[in-house]
Amino acid sequence: MTNRIREGDYVLLYLDDKRTYLVKAEKGKNFHTHKGFIRIDDLIDNEYGSSILSNTGVKFIALKPTLCDYVLKSVRKTQITYPKDAALIVTLSGIGPGNTVVEAGTGTGALTCALAYYVRPNGKVYSYEVRSDFIEVALKNVRRAGLAEYVEIKNKDVIEGIDEREVDAVVLDMATPWLVVPHAYASLKPSGAFVSFSPTVDQAVKTVEALRENCFVRVETIECLLRRIITEPGRTRPETLMTAHTGYLTFARKALKA
Amino acid sequence: MTNRIREGDYVLLYLDDKRTYLVKAEKGKNFHTHKGFIRIDDLIDNEYGSSILSNTGVKFIALKPTLCDYVLKSVRKTQITYPKDAALIVTLSGIGPGNTVVEAGTGTGALTCALAYYVRPNGKVYSYEVRSDFIEVALKNVRRAGLAEYVEIKNKDVIEGIDEREVDAVVLDMATPWLVVPHAYASLKPSGAFVSFSPTVDQAVKTVEALRENCFVRVETIECLLRRIITEPGRTRPETLMTAHTGYLTFARKALKA
Amino acid sequence: MTNRIREGDYVLLYLDDKRTYLVKAEKGKNFHTHKGFIRIDDLIDNEYGSSILSNTGVKFIALKPTLCDYVLKSVRKTQITYPKDAALIVTLSGIGPGNTVVEAGTGTGALTCALAYYVRPNGKVYSYEVRSDFIEVALKNVRRAGLAEYVEIKNKDVIEGIDEREVDAVVLDMATPWLVVPHAYASLKPSGAFVSFSPTVDQAVKTVEALRENCFVRVETIECLLRRIITEPGRTRPETLMTAHTGYLTFARKALKA
Amino acid sequence: MTNRIREGDYVLLYLDDKRTYLVKAEKGKNFHTHKGFIRIDDLIDNEYGSSILSNTGVKFIALKPTLCDYVLKSVRKTQITYPKDAALIVTLSGIGPGNTVVEAGTGTGALTCALAYYVRPNGKVYSYEVRSDFIEVALKNVRRAGLAEYVEIKNKDVIEGIDEREVDAVVLDMATPWLVVPHAYASLKPSGAFVSFSPTVDQAVKTVEALRENCFVRVETIECLLRRIITEPGRTRPETLMTAHTGYLTFARKALKA
Repeated sequence: MTNRIREGDYVLLYLDDKRTYLVKAEKGKNFHTHKGFIRIDDLIDNEYGSSILSNTGVKFIALKPTLCDYVLKSVRKTQITYPKDAALIVTLSGIGPGNTVVEAGTGTGALTCALAYYVRPNGKVYSYEVRSDFIEVALKNVRRAGLAEYVEIKNKDVIEGIDEREVDAVVLDMATPWLVVPHAYASLKPSGAFVSFSPTVDQAVKTVEALRENCFVRVETIECLLRRIITEPGRTRPETLMTAHTGYLTFARKALKA
Repeated sequence: MTNRIREGDYVLLYLDDKRTYLVKAEKGKNFHTHKGFIRIDDLIDNEYGSSILSNTGVKFIALKPTLCDYVLKSVRKTQITYPKDAALIVTLSGIGPGNTVVEAGTGTGALTCALAYYVRPNGKVYSYEVRSDFIEVALKNVRRAGLAEYVEIKNKDVIEGIDEREVDAVVLDMATPWLVVPHAYASLKPSGAFVSFSPTVDQAVKTVEALRENCFVRVETIECLLRRIITEPGRTRPETLMTAHTGYLTFARKALKA
Repeated sequence: MTNRIREGDYVLLYLDDKRTYLVKAEKGKNFHTHKGFIRIDDLIDNEYGSSILSNTGVKFIALKPTLCDYVLKSVRKTQITYPKDAALIVTLSGIGPGNTVVEAGTGTGALTCALAYYVRPNGKVYSYEVRSDFIEVALKNVRRAGLAEYVEIKNKDVIEGIDEREVDAVVLDMATPWLVVPHAYASLKPSGAFVSFSPTVDQAVKTVEALRENCFVRVETIECLLRRIITEPGRTRPETLMTAHTGYLTFARKALKA
Repeated sequence: MTNRIREGDYVLLYLDDKRTYLVKAEKGKNFHTHKGFIRIDDLIDNEYGSSILSNTGVKFIALKPTLCDYVLKSVRKTQITYPKDAALIVTLSGIGPGNTVVEAGTGTGALTCALAYYVRPNGKVYSYEVRSDFIEVALKNVRRAGLAEYVEIKNKDVIEGIDEREVDAVVLDMATPWLVVPHAYASLKPSGAFVSFSPTVDQAVKTVEALRENCFVRVETIECLLRRIITEPGRTRPETLMTAHTGYLTFARKALKA
């Protein structure tokens, strides 16, 4: 994999730690910011990591977008809040290259991207979503991140059942995860991983109850508080405002019925 | 990939949410617990997820170990504290399948395992460690997790330089990460990711200073507080005691010198 | 108020930041520690803040106990966890000198001491407790802190009603605070403060519901996480282990029925 | 103390949990809100806790302001962030009725109010402030809270020394608390309490160093995270955004030089 920006690639234009822009490298176009515009032709064939000046002489750096950049830009949030949950969902459940994962709901596809990124190159994500308008947005985000081949989005209600069998993990980010627990059990291979993300305590409690009734073990609920530190010599301190709550994460493993 | 326990595999024997045991499936052996012993021969050829009784009739469940189980057992901690940091290191820096990653120091190999797991099947982790006694322990842990082919551990002091070039990420968990920042710059491909884990504020501040002086951008320091929730209908509450601090994570990206 | 240790006073013997001992100044006695014994006669008539040597030559400092020292020693905890909640209960509800406060249950009297300390010298705390064995312990703790004249402990079940009227605040630390909300309403003066401390989410939710049904306003639930920082030049970091949960605090104010 | 609103009193007009207004009861005046205006004459002689309608028929409740209401309105913040620190400063240091306390700097007088409230009726707060414009604001806030008789604000730089001797506590909320540590030592009675509030880690570290060099013991630094919980049956969750950092609190006690 060469490290040059090619036509059609995405580039993260970095102005400063608060301002970055995800831009497609399309010939002949200009990208306008409040600091002047960038000629996209100046980017193409340049190396990632290069500096580029806007027409008003302001320096931008052309970074290669990471998974998190795609995830963040897709969910329209400006800080790493959702990525922390995606990180824990993937890693604490052991989702990795080669895995088959069922997800519901797809939403804007942010978590779908994270899952697809980590099951590459031999795994697959089957993502259930009832709303077709969400599916369109999600498909766009998944394609933009270059992950379309690892994802199949299904316009189905996961509460009515999961088609796939012997999957490695079922990941839920939806209003009523407890209703899907029996389907997740049927779909998972023995010892497979269940994960659910829920904003409220009540959802987490109901999901845990359903898991215990359905022969899941190692049931555990956590929350993660991510705090940014302003590190300046002589003036180091945590950031004043913080996203203190996104949701609770519930993890479990499928045991076979005795 | 079949889902049966084969000779030589590792099995996570689950007794309850507080007690699990990582056991190798070796013919003819017994595994002793305070609840009696398990005949390993009874495990072999059984499906992961099955129940098994100890000689005193206590039920254990034979789970397939996840990445985190290997990580946790290798660092001899009983809760998901270090895994949270490993999760954020990997995901927030965008480390994924196919990446080449440099790590220092190897330590017990816990983070090495997480990195190797996620660069599979085409990536590689080069891990620097000065202490040969640590290397032995780390190699054992990496092998046990089945990740040896993705890892090369080097008995070298990373402060003297990094051999690899055009790497995707440099990940540091060592006492003086700031001394390695220039080497990381030389080793990384443009736009590549730097991550450092440090227990103290002072280490984080020095590392951030070195990064800013060495043409890194998107420099950010965070800490992550992971809280377990006891979800019992009618009695839900956060856990009383919590590991409130493991360390600070500093992330950055390499920009080209203008 | 002179600053000398008199017979009958309590002294906090400070050995180091982890070890302090609350001792009564009784003539002719010795106080034994693992660092030798202290002759109490050596303390009497000395100034608070003085050093004193044990018979083995180890230095202790004779501090005057603060409210928190009495509270901490009475609840047999070694860190400032409960005091943080006592601090918020008192201050955020505006309990202060001259107030009449109803408390239930008394328990070991730790919160009773904090309330009594702050309603001095003209206020009064009426504390309800059903268990007579607790009352004995609480009385001992209240007397030791020198606060007995500001406290009346009643061997009554607060669920059956509160005798006092026109009180400034009702403070509950008991299993079923929601059952006491109507009594608290009857007992409080209009605009008076209600506070409840509960370990579980479910208790807080039920209490909030009862408050809303009973014409309370400004209903608010919080939790407080207190983190200790190890401040050492060059090695500053938060403490590893932390008491991450004691309970939820619910505050409200009585409005008159329209 | 009667519970009726009298001319000249302050009233906290409560509209809902997000909107309250601190209003002086002045005859003949109207108080204008976006929900219409309130005739102040309708408030006077009414009981605290009563409902009152604006001219457009919207209900407000006339609460008696608590200490925190004065503190919050004086610091122009809408949530209980600073009050949590004031609560811990007062309670964890044992400041209480009858105490003599030195404070610096006065600032807007928010902490001054909290200290004065708790040293009543026989104690006194001496508050140092170099900026005369701040003193004017602080005096206004202290008077409004009805605490003027317990406070003396001094237009002096505390770095040049503290006039008072044998004080119970010295409380610092200023940029360079470490420079005041020797003066605090001279001013405090033996065993007396030192408290400092600082936004940055670096200030806390320097202050701790100065305390250790100046014969203070029980030196401890903490931070407090206060989290609001949205308690709604079936939808309970922590608030999304939180003030995650106000400052570090350092506590210490004066020991006599041996």
